[in-house]
Amino acid sequence: MKSIVVRPPKEGTELVETESPPQPDKGEVLVRTLLTGICGTDRGIVNGRLKFARPPLKREQLVLGHESIGEVEAIGGGVELSKGDIVVPVVRRGCGVCLNCKIGRQDFCETGNFVEAGIRGHDGFMREFFLDQEMYMVKVPPQLKEIGVLTEPLSNVVKALDQLWFLQRRTLWTCEDSTYNCRTALVIGSGPIGLLFSMALSTEGFRVIVLNRRDPSEVESKITEQIGVKFLKLDDGVPPADLVVDTAGSPSTLLRLLPKLKNNGAVILFGTTSGEREELSADVITELVERNVVMVGSVNASKEHFQRGVTYLSVWHDRFPEALKLMITSEVRPEEAPEVLKAKSKGEIKTVLRWSQ
Amino acid sequence: MKSIVVRPPKEGTELVETESPPQPDKGEVLVRTLLTGICGTDRGIVNGRLKFARPPLKREQLVLGHESIGEVEAIGGGVELSKGDIVVPVVRRGCGVCLNCKIGRQDFCETGNFVEAGIRGHDGFMREFFLDQEMYMVKVPPQLKEIGVLTEPLSNVVKALDQLWFLQRRTLWTCEDSTYNCRTALVIGSGPIGLLFSMALSTEGFRVIVLNRRDPSEVESKITEQIGVKFLKLDDGVPPADLVVDTAGSPSTLLRLLPKLKNNGAVILFGTTSGEREELSADVITELVERNVVMVGSVNASKEHFQRGVTYLSVWHDRFPEALKLMITSEVRPEEAPEVLKAKSKGEIKTVLRWSQ
Amino acid sequence: MKSIVVRPPKEGTELVETESPPQPDKGEVLVRTLLTGICGTDRGIVNGRLKFARPPLKREQLVLGHESIGEVEAIGGGVELSKGDIVVPVVRRGCGVCLNCKIGRQDFCETGNFVEAGIRGHDGFMREFFLDQEMYMVKVPPQLKEIGVLTEPLSNVVKALDQLWFLQRRTLWTCEDSTYNCRTALVIGSGPIGLLFSMALSTEGFRVIVLNRRDPSEVESKITEQIGVKFLKLDDGVPPADLVVDTAGSPSTLLRLLPKLKNNGAVILFGTTSGEREELSADVITELVERNVVMVGSVNASKEHFQRGVTYLSVWHDRFPEALKLMITSEVRPEEAPEVLKAKSKGEIKTVLRWSQ
Amino acid sequence: MKSIVVRPPKEGTELVETESPPQPDKGEVLVRTLLTGICGTDRGIVNGRLKFARPPLKREQLVLGHESIGEVEAIGGGVELSKGDIVVPVVRRGCGVCLNCKIGRQDFCETGNFVEAGIRGHDGFMREFFLDQEMYMVKVPPQLKEIGVLTEPLSNVVKALDQLWFLQRRTLWTCEDSTYNCRTALVIGSGPIGLLFSMALSTEGFRVIVLNRRDPSEVESKITEQIGVKFLKLDDGVPPADLVVDTAGSPSTLLRLLPKLKNNGAVILFGTTSGEREELSADVITELVERNVVMVGSVNASKEHFQRGVTYLSVWHDRFPEALKLMITSEVRPEEAPEVLKAKSKGEIKTVLRWSQ
Repeated sequence: MKSIVVRPPKEGTELVETESPPQPDKGEVLVRTLLTGICGTDRGIVNGRLKFARPPLKREQLVLGHESIGEVEAIGGGVELSKGDIVVPVVRRGCGVCLNCKIGRQDFCETGNFVEAGIRGHDGFMREFFLDQEMYMVKVPPQLKEIGVLTEPLSNVVKALDQLWFLQRRTLWTCEDSTYNCRTALVIGSGPIGLLFSMALSTEGFRVIVLNRRDPSEVESKITEQIGVKFLKLDDGVPPADLVVDTAGSPSTLLRLLPKLKNNGAVILFGTTSGEREELSADVITELVERNVVMVGSVNASKEHFQRGVTYLSVWHDRFPEALKLMITSEVRPEEAPEVLKAKSKGEIKTVLRWSQ
Repeated sequence: MKSIVVRPPKEGTELVETESPPQPDKGEVLVRTLLTGICGTDRGIVNGRLKFARPPLKREQLVLGHESIGEVEAIGGGVELSKGDIVVPVVRRGCGVCLNCKIGRQDFCETGNFVEAGIRGHDGFMREFFLDQEMYMVKVPPQLKEIGVLTEPLSNVVKALDQLWFLQRRTLWTCEDSTYNCRTALVIGSGPIGLLFSMALSTEGFRVIVLNRRDPSEVESKITEQIGVKFLKLDDGVPPADLVVDTAGSPSTLLRLLPKLKNNGAVILFGTTSGEREELSADVITELVERNVVMVGSVNASKEHFQRGVTYLSVWHDRFPEALKLMITSEVRPEEAPEVLKAKSKGEIKTVLRWSQ
Repeated sequence: MKSIVVRPPKEGTELVETESPPQPDKGEVLVRTLLTGICGTDRGIVNGRLKFARPPLKREQLVLGHESIGEVEAIGGGVELSKGDIVVPVVRRGCGVCLNCKIGRQDFCETGNFVEAGIRGHDGFMREFFLDQEMYMVKVPPQLKEIGVLTEPLSNVVKALDQLWFLQRRTLWTCEDSTYNCRTALVIGSGPIGLLFSMALSTEGFRVIVLNRRDPSEVESKITEQIGVKFLKLDDGVPPADLVVDTAGSPSTLLRLLPKLKNNGAVILFGTTSGEREELSADVITELVERNVVMVGSVNASKEHFQRGVTYLSVWHDRFPEALKLMITSEVRPEEAPEVLKAKSKGEIKTVLRWSQ
Repeated sequence: MKSIVVRPPKEGTELVETESPPQPDKGEVLVRTLLTGICGTDRGIVNGRLKFARPPLKREQLVLGHESIGEVEAIGGGVELSKGDIVVPVVRRGCGVCLNCKIGRQDFCETGNFVEAGIRGHDGFMREFFLDQEMYMVKVPPQLKEIGVLTEPLSNVVKALDQLWFLQRRTLWTCEDSTYNCRTALVIGSGPIGLLFSMALSTEGFRVIVLNRRDPSEVESKITEQIGVKFLKLDDGVPPADLVVDTAGSPSTLLRLLPKLKNNGAVILFGTTSGEREELSADVITELVERNVVMVGSVNASKEHFQRGVTYLSVWHDRFPEALKLMITSEVRPEEAPEVLKAKSKGEIKTVLRWSQ
């Protein structure tokens, strides 16, 4: 079968023939891949920038791909899923040692000894079939077959927001009518993650403003209009806000927006980048103190977040199916993968590879 | 009666004669001041550095002092306290408008329109007597009469830790034996706040390391030894930690210690300063993200935190009464206040003014 | 305009002509009623059994109806809703005095001095138009126009489950994969509330078993099959469970199922009835203690629960639109209301009154 | 060495000679027992009433005793405790399989396959020495040497209150001043557990009323006066309350007090008994629903609760040392154990056995 592999830390990808997986054993499922998504992490691996990328133990090549959706082709004994079920696999697999991994919260792994499919130590899903344990499969309703490939990136958004909802119960953050309708969120970045945060926050009642250094593309304009959020250039008058979601990781942009935070506000740190530097003054720290601000870094997601991501997708599929479809700006064949994996194309939100129907 | 007043933004203090308060009305108590403490905020007001200091409306002078303990001298109707009860007054009084103030959590005031006794818009407690509403009084057991003046600074520590305990339930932060005994805290700063954080964290099971740029003074050595925590110079090998408590507010020290944080770690921002700057690199933000770190600014305290501060004082009074006494390094007469308010003296931890016995 | 009124504690209802509401003032909306639902509370009022039913102050008649959906017909100044928006009104309006009402959580009113539209002290929605404050309106996506009348009963389910999710964080209740997929819920009663609980719990990952004393009706069979839950007669082998949701209020059924609860289990008390009695033995209490069981009574809902109810409806509308439609077993004209309000008809799940299109 | 053993399900106890434990291995401590307490569970085992009592695997006799305090006599490798440290051992040891036991919360064991020292499957502490793992030891300050034997019963109270504080954040349960000072608790039963609940609730700001069917004994009067709580006979006018703590387990008393609960109230079920029955009417269930009442059964405690129990003891030792001493109404020699274990003596609160000084 066809597979897309990398040899970290070497640059580049190859489309190669690999052996098809065997029939599923007890507790396992064989999945036929439908779609896989491409994200910045994939490109970071392909470009040799992500230092933590590594093949499975005693192997030289790693199958790429962690955003995926597939159809169950065969099941082993004791499995509750059925042939034909649509599934999305969980990416990170726990260290088995720390308490968080023991309770299924590998997104909070303490030891760092986890593996991640398509990223570090575990083959990913850019291949025609994969064999996996049922416990790592998240069932997706058939209605979401074409859009469920967004589940994985969305799961990370859900985990971050899960943190937010929990953390902000530290104070009274709901409004006079018990909702979040009086709260404003600034989302830095209009990539897929920024837009998914915007959809989720809007669903939970926030007024959302997506920020970028440039004007919106046509598709960004359509999506933000349909999902009911505002797009602003960073230069324009950014209003005070209760929440800043940073999907970019740029110190200068973050430090520029922190003064916009109201008392008891929150910051979600989600984006990562490198190289940039900006001066942090003691006055900024003083403001964080005097305003009771909470900042939380959030990475990865556990199965519960994938499941709640699927729930969000159902909501949005019912409310703005077109905006959801617009998120996938390009669908290409596996043969085109080595090319599209090199760099983000102009106007791209999410590019996906089609493996089967 | 004698009172110590300031005329912000002017520098300096005066010991003046002011009119004694009237007898208490319904719901009020008349309190005879025993001791008042001096802290950095007082000195910031006296030196004209704290821009938010202001007298009560339509007045030019402000009675200084927010750390205080007194004895009930007389009570108004419907009051449950009795003459002779020992009390500590709450400092901040809510705006009456925002939801947090409506539920008694003025430490989370959203509007900023609160007043603070001895700081902004409300007379403080550096005077022989004060009249106040009973609802702002926190009862203190007679055993703590000489040490209860620490309740106010401690209340702010309790509020910050209250935030911490709540926030860290976002992940599984307890150890294999259900306690915090496997967790290490780094406390930046060995002033009264740093030491109170150390006592409280140690009581809750943490290994605590107090950090300073210099070697400990003799009294700091005695206190840290008696309360069972370690004192380290910042240059020495600081071990990895689960919690950083910053009581200093210096960006350079904070950024130097962030890399010590383990996965799922937490940072309490408590200290405020000004002037200093340090470069924040994108790599630091990436680490906060990848490690699921939470940072929280915390200011002020509500009555519940005063009450739990009193509980801590009882614990420590039973376990290490001498260390507690050592915290008060100097007791002076009100006449000496203008001088001691100018600057921190060498070796000072807490200086108090004695108003009566 | 036509209105359905009652004169509690008298039995019976009348369809009468009442004056149309005036145009909306600042902050108000005029709503044209589309549908109103009928529930047990309405029938309890009509039959004179609900002792707390009462007309607004200084009035003798009360407009009935608290389950409702309408279309905005006109708006007053400062209103964000637009003409044509679909809305569901909140039922309970707070006492204005207790802390819970002050923060918009009138479902937790401490004083009991709230009013409830169509139930006590406030006119309901069984009329062609109603004027109300915008803050009590919950916006509903147009896709849910025909089914959004279920929002109000669902809001109470959401509030109860909101309690459950919060309460069960007291222990580790999630499964090895971080979800609730290993948990089983027993739902006593297959009325609209029982079915809405089943849909919501199933969406959250539970295996759900709906229990009744009788076999399912044809429509119940269809709905439970489509939503993926099981229907069991109480006589049949009921398996051990982690959660019991009681929508009936019968002491004998409840006490019969409590022994099915596993360690750390939970019970939601939602149903109310009267007259029945059953012996409670000390052994039952011992089991609740030894098993760390939590039981919570839950009543009413706040605006946040209405909003999240609307989110659930979107999910279900996307996943099983037919099952959702089947919930409304009968749609009648207001003229028929006096008759259908007398008693539940055979096979009825939810009967609605059509006021306009 | 001397040990007190039982042979469940046979009645009676024996003081026998058993072999002294070996020197501690890695991670172990050898403890010289100072005091052991006697409680209802011990007497239930001795009288053959507690069906779950059982000796360790393949043994016929069980060393009795789960309330204990001792002094470290020798330590194995890698142990942090020192010879001379005062310690209290944890009672329940987890099943090693369920998630709660894996994270050190064996008090929430799901499988039921735990063991409990002195109760089921694990030797207890009524013996001159015992060898145990350090991880099960809770360090106690030397000041509490004579009173720390109360730590174990108190740990169960702390766990129950820990549940309460968590559960009641479901609603706004704090008062207008952010404390619990406006809340009233009814504690059913004035035994050691009832009094420890009273001390803890009073420390947290509650007004506490201890209830019994009879008048207080002289020592009960002294203790309740010193700790600042009220003692009422059940016949007397019991006021409405926010919390009912049931340490008795009697259905009739419980059902009699439920109507006293205010809106959003809570019930802690802690006591267990048998035999008694009382009618539960549907109206009681309706009240629990309409009032949003939460009831929670609570059993056992984890190490964190022992540690916080020790903290409470320090508070009380500082505030009312005499009341604490009065809790131990009798100290006897091991030779007297078979007699005092038969039945509670008149006026007994806590009887302890003295093993060494």
